[in-house]
Amino acid sequence: MPVKTEPGSRLAALRDEIEGRLRSYLPQRDRLIPPLWDAVAHSLLGGGKRLRPLLVYAACEATGGQPGEDLWRACAAAEYLHTFSLVHDDLPCMDDDDLRRGQPTCHKVYGEGMAVLAGDALAVLAFEVLAATSHPELVGEFARAIGGEGMIGGQVADLQAEGRPAHRDQVTRIHRLKTAALMVACVRAGGIVAGANRAALNALTVYGEELGSAFQIKDDLLDVLGTTESLGKTAGLDARRAKATYPSATSVAEAATQCELHATAAISALQGLREPGLLRELVHLCTQREG
Amino acid sequence: MPVKTEPGSRLAALRDEIEGRLRSYLPQRDRLIPPLWDAVAHSLLGGGKRLRPLLVYAACEATGGQPGEDLWRACAAAEYLHTFSLVHDDLPCMDDDDLRRGQPTCHKVYGEGMAVLAGDALAVLAFEVLAATSHPELVGEFARAIGGEGMIGGQVADLQAEGRPAHRDQVTRIHRLKTAALMVACVRAGGIVAGANRAALNALTVYGEELGSAFQIKDDLLDVLGTTESLGKTAGLDARRAKATYPSATSVAEAATQCELHATAAISALQGLREPGLLRELVHLCTQREG
Repeated sequence: MPVKTEPGSRLAALRDEIEGRLRSYLPQRDRLIPPLWDAVAHSLLGGGKRLRPLLVYAACEATGGQPGEDLWRACAAAEYLHTFSLVHDDLPCMDDDDLRRGQPTCHKVYGEGMAVLAGDALAVLAFEVLAATSHPELVGEFARAIGGEGMIGGQVADLQAEGRPAHRDQVTRIHRLKTAALMVACVRAGGIVAGANRAALNALTVYGEELGSAFQIKDDLLDVLGTTESLGKTAGLDARRAKATYPSATSVAEAATQCELHATAAISALQGLREPGLLRELVHLCTQREG
Repeated sequence: MPVKTEPGSRLAALRDEIEGRLRSYLPQRDRLIPPLWDAVAHSLLGGGKRLRPLLVYAACEATGGQPGEDLWRACAAAEYLHTFSLVHDDLPCMDDDDLRRGQPTCHKVYGEGMAVLAGDALAVLAFEVLAATSHPELVGEFARAIGGEGMIGGQVADLQAEGRPAHRDQVTRIHRLKTAALMVACVRAGGIVAGANRAALNALTVYGEELGSAFQIKDDLLDVLGTTESLGKTAGLDARRAKATYPSATSVAEAATQCELHATAAISALQGLREPGLLRELVHLCTQREG
């Protein structure tokens, strides 16, 4: 893998490496009862920005770490956990979405029961892959981030807020739990693998929180302003389901302003880290994306 | 906690201790977005045999270990993972059951979306609780047991077999994955906490496999022969959903014979363990139960 190339192609090379790892830590297809592997692979290997593994990698680099088996495992686990959340969130009893990453959602192809189980299998696989690293504390780090006091809690809040007038504080809380918590775990995981000190881990935590907010406000904005084609998922679904979003709680203009403010704060948090270039680039990737 | 009393009251005392631990490792109610804690507690704290935590405990005792924080964490994690599987298996898109442990199922009370999330939260909590022990290998042990090549794979096989003629080999495979894999992890976890040697862990593995088979054949038999009242879940549901069960693949008489054979094999596997009394008692608990 090239270590120093121009930013665009470097990201592409990193994504290729990540794709390979996502596949290599999956069980062999013939070791799983059909159609489990296919249902998992459909959701996992069908594209995606791979932002969370990139965050793990970039945080390791930023704090002076070198890529190695433990890092790639943490990268893969981050994407397994993210995909688990997407598969369950898309279910008819949750956000009821037919389209994800430009493909029919898992339950549209394999049925709801199989989608529940494919999501379950991905979550468990993430912990299995993390358990095989030499950093057992990564298990606790990711578990706290995605559990009832983190991402899953955010999804509960999101479901409960549906169809009611949204308040800014409430939306901020949902974003922190639903989106930022996992991103914080990703960058902290990269730092932990690199052996980062407490000050660096604290800086990464602030970065993850700010990036998570910027990312999710942008996501809310794209649902209003984007197209189904550019997003790879159904546009306008938040309004149709009366979800609590930042633009609905404030305005499109205010949401855009806040997105920028959080992005700036994320970049500011990187002061003092050794090699923050890739983490900085990922902020731009999040806020300037069209899908 | 009494260490030596008559068997019946000893089990009752152990169950009380386990109930306390199940509650104490849960996040505080006010730290979770409503109604997540209630949905989790509804399924987790509403009774149950607590067989899996008892297996963890009994295996630790059998291999010379002493109760302590790590053991109770492993006990709680085992029940969290079991309850996670029950909550998801009861969903309308899976076994579609209205009654569990004598109560309406989680989704009947809190809705399907919340039941998916309550199950997810329990699975993640289990790994968080295990990650805080001084035996990080427990994470891998349980993750392998419940993942796509274990319990979740068994649930896939179970779903796929519905409505088709069941063959004995296929049912045996479903039982091994769906039920025995977690029980094997439970007894191995107890052994690991106790510092058991390889021979003892192998004996526990055989015990778990045989007990799992006996338990699930008994479960299949109870669905045919039991009542909804004695079971605390809807009787006769397997036949109504044309599930692949041992009695349907063979006969009630053959299933009863096989249940006994597996129970005997489980007890035989205990030869050579230091203090196998409680593990032996749990075999009787599984095969002589009426619910």
